[in-house]
Amino acid sequence: MQRILTTEVTARVGERVRIAGWLHSLRLLGSINFLVIRDGWGQVQAVAETEAEMAPLSECYAGIESVVAVEGLVVSEPQAPGGCELHDLRIEVITPVNEGPAIALNKRKITAGLSTLLDHAVVANRHPARRAILRLASGTMASFRSTLAARGFTEIQTPKIVAAATESGANVFKLDYFDRPAYLAQSPQFYKQIMVGVFERVFEVGPVFRAEPHDTARHLNEYVSLDAEFGFIKDHFTVMALLRDVIAGILATFDEQYRAELELLRVQMPAVPEEIPHIHFADAQELILKRYGVDVRGEPDLSPQDERWLGEWAQQEFGSDFLYVTGYPMVKRPFYTYPEPGRPQYSNSFDLIFRGTELVTGGQRLHRYEDYRAALEKARLPLEPFATYLEAFKYGMPPHGGFAIGSERLLMQLIGATNVKLTALFPRDMTRLTP
Amino acid sequence: MQRILTTEVTARVGERVRIAGWLHSLRLLGSINFLVIRDGWGQVQAVAETEAEMAPLSECYAGIESVVAVEGLVVSEPQAPGGCELHDLRIEVITPVNEGPAIALNKRKITAGLSTLLDHAVVANRHPARRAILRLASGTMASFRSTLAARGFTEIQTPKIVAAATESGANVFKLDYFDRPAYLAQSPQFYKQIMVGVFERVFEVGPVFRAEPHDTARHLNEYVSLDAEFGFIKDHFTVMALLRDVIAGILATFDEQYRAELELLRVQMPAVPEEIPHIHFADAQELILKRYGVDVRGEPDLSPQDERWLGEWAQQEFGSDFLYVTGYPMVKRPFYTYPEPGRPQYSNSFDLIFRGTELVTGGQRLHRYEDYRAALEKARLPLEPFATYLEAFKYGMPPHGGFAIGSERLLMQLIGATNVKLTALFPRDMTRLTP
Repeated sequence: MQRILTTEVTARVGERVRIAGWLHSLRLLGSINFLVIRDGWGQVQAVAETEAEMAPLSECYAGIESVVAVEGLVVSEPQAPGGCELHDLRIEVITPVNEGPAIALNKRKITAGLSTLLDHAVVANRHPARRAILRLASGTMASFRSTLAARGFTEIQTPKIVAAATESGANVFKLDYFDRPAYLAQSPQFYKQIMVGVFERVFEVGPVFRAEPHDTARHLNEYVSLDAEFGFIKDHFTVMALLRDVIAGILATFDEQYRAELELLRVQMPAVPEEIPHIHFADAQELILKRYGVDVRGEPDLSPQDERWLGEWAQQEFGSDFLYVTGYPMVKRPFYTYPEPGRPQYSNSFDLIFRGTELVTGGQRLHRYEDYRAALEKARLPLEPFATYLEAFKYGMPPHGGFAIGSERLLMQLIGATNVKLTALFPRDMTRLTP
Repeated sequence: MQRILTTEVTARVGERVRIAGWLHSLRLLGSINFLVIRDGWGQVQAVAETEAEMAPLSECYAGIESVVAVEGLVVSEPQAPGGCELHDLRIEVITPVNEGPAIALNKRKITAGLSTLLDHAVVANRHPARRAILRLASGTMASFRSTLAARGFTEIQTPKIVAAATESGANVFKLDYFDRPAYLAQSPQFYKQIMVGVFERVFEVGPVFRAEPHDTARHLNEYVSLDAEFGFIKDHFTVMALLRDVIAGILATFDEQYRAELELLRVQMPAVPEEIPHIHFADAQELILKRYGVDVRGEPDLSPQDERWLGEWAQQEFGSDFLYVTGYPMVKRPFYTYPEPGRPQYSNSFDLIFRGTELVTGGQRLHRYEDYRAALEKARLPLEPFATYLEAFKYGMPPHGGFAIGSERLLMQLIGATNVKLTALFPRDMTRLTP
């Protein structure tokens, strides 16, 4: 008999079907035994009322997490999860398991601490709640791509081994490349800009590597960056409009295709306004003084407290979970940032604040060759390591800009996870290299 | 006026439109001047018949590769490329360029040698022929994903920094991870198998790193691997059936969405048979003896010449560009390979041969914990570095298998490129770390 998925069982009441998966839970009540079979998509309850039905399990001492196939009659049963269950079973053990895993997979909540959970991620990721998060991670990538592909963006994959640190010399992993030093890319920034010269509109979904010596709830040393970059923009507001659509696209995808995961995780999805409200950095500092009585004017950046206040204001003033802060001071932005026309101490850049925390950074970039030479000089950076990057600008680049979303951090904030490590398959931090 | 794309111009005969892009070529014939504007998708000819029209270019000495916007009247002109051209121009220079690039972008053929081409890839990738290849690379990834997503596969992104070499100790890049040694992943093999325990069906599109000290037309030291792995298979034939559909999906996508690129590159697309013919390794060796008089029986692997002979045979016998060779000897396959039931010197693995050259490798994997322990022991490998990998098998894994496609190599063979480096955006080889 052809196997069907657990999610297909409900539609087959009255028929005999075959499902396969892991023995998720087992309640032995003597005369009646409840088995739950979990496959890659869901789970189904199976009820055994005879010893003969259970014999294949008991013969090889097959317990929890054994891989099994179960044939049975689909019976409507309002009390069962999903509204139906299998009766009159024929059980086949595919891979017997005699010892339960370190993390209980069939309890609603994972009680293990973060460290134990991550140590045993290989098995813990099978837990329905873990799996729901990781499936949303997959959905995040898919909807990022589909939103951009629909707007004429071309996907690229740029090198991760590079000859020089991209953005700053610090926080970069060094490796031995055939007896020469090389580095792991901190971002695809330079390459995605270069590729604007080829495809005009590009995106990349790929790993980036940050040797930041911080072990916080918001840091990963390797993460998946969702990068977009495109040409012929007016200024950073063109970029902000695109990012708004990307975020809306991810939320719409969750809503349409990942309802089960959202419900399991009890996620409160935000709404994205048609136009996300925005405030200039200088005005934001004035607002904080007027509204909260704290004078942060002259500070070159916003503090986490500032961001919380601004988030509160956006919520009260516009009913929005999202807020753009524009015009961050040039001193705090990388050398390729485009300065604000008329006020060159500020920049055509932005942060997207979500519920009081920074979520995405982006902006307009310099596009003239001479501006790059001047900017590198001003930053006291040598030209030589940037030679091939500069070659793109030497031969004509349009006004362009883009943004980078930390995929795990976005998901963390959308679902309200307490630690970014919980939204990665197998996170890397300062001390964790396995699994 | 709102800019339209060059590909949209044909539909606007009789209207004034605005296009933007790079000044791809410029023919000055005195009383009449022909400009070709290239944007991210195509190109359009514009004709200037007065000095006034050309003034914005001459005022700032804007030459080839200058970024410009051009407004003009769309006129049907059968002689023009695309069947129409712009007249009565208003030219606006966005970014002037006064010096032509090292690689001529407006000649049909790139005459520069491979090394020069790669040195200047930043600009050379703008050449329509280069761009066509790179756009097909994007299409390869997209169709790989869509074929698998339609079959219930979930996308994963697994760590690239790992604690131990995945498949073999050699050919691995070593890096400094917060003062500890770490390595770059040679493949997502272990992680994708582990994730079969979570999602059952998974795929990944991501970089892999091979420190192979070879500089050939078929080697890259960093490349994009298209990986798939799934559970509850019967044997390697289940995997081969999926791979057939993936290859067919890529070819269908090219055919439907990338006609312009295929024509520009003059690619002869192969047809994929409904069922790709297959031959067992042992039978292949017998066939070579009988048909070509060379006795390769007892050899543990096929030579390139053997593969060419088998390709020839598949073409003559089945009219197929594709051939599966199954059952490769265990000695030549990694420790996790599933042996052939009844003939344990052979394996449930396969290579896909395309036009006489190996294209993809895959197979069924071991799935029982005890089998892994025995296999590692037999391979004289210590258990400890594989501890977390083994944890997945300890807690129940179904029969499973998969394959890995080298994205650049697949594209190289499909389009008949002479060097795999030509199908990568910015290739990495033993001596090349930039651009």
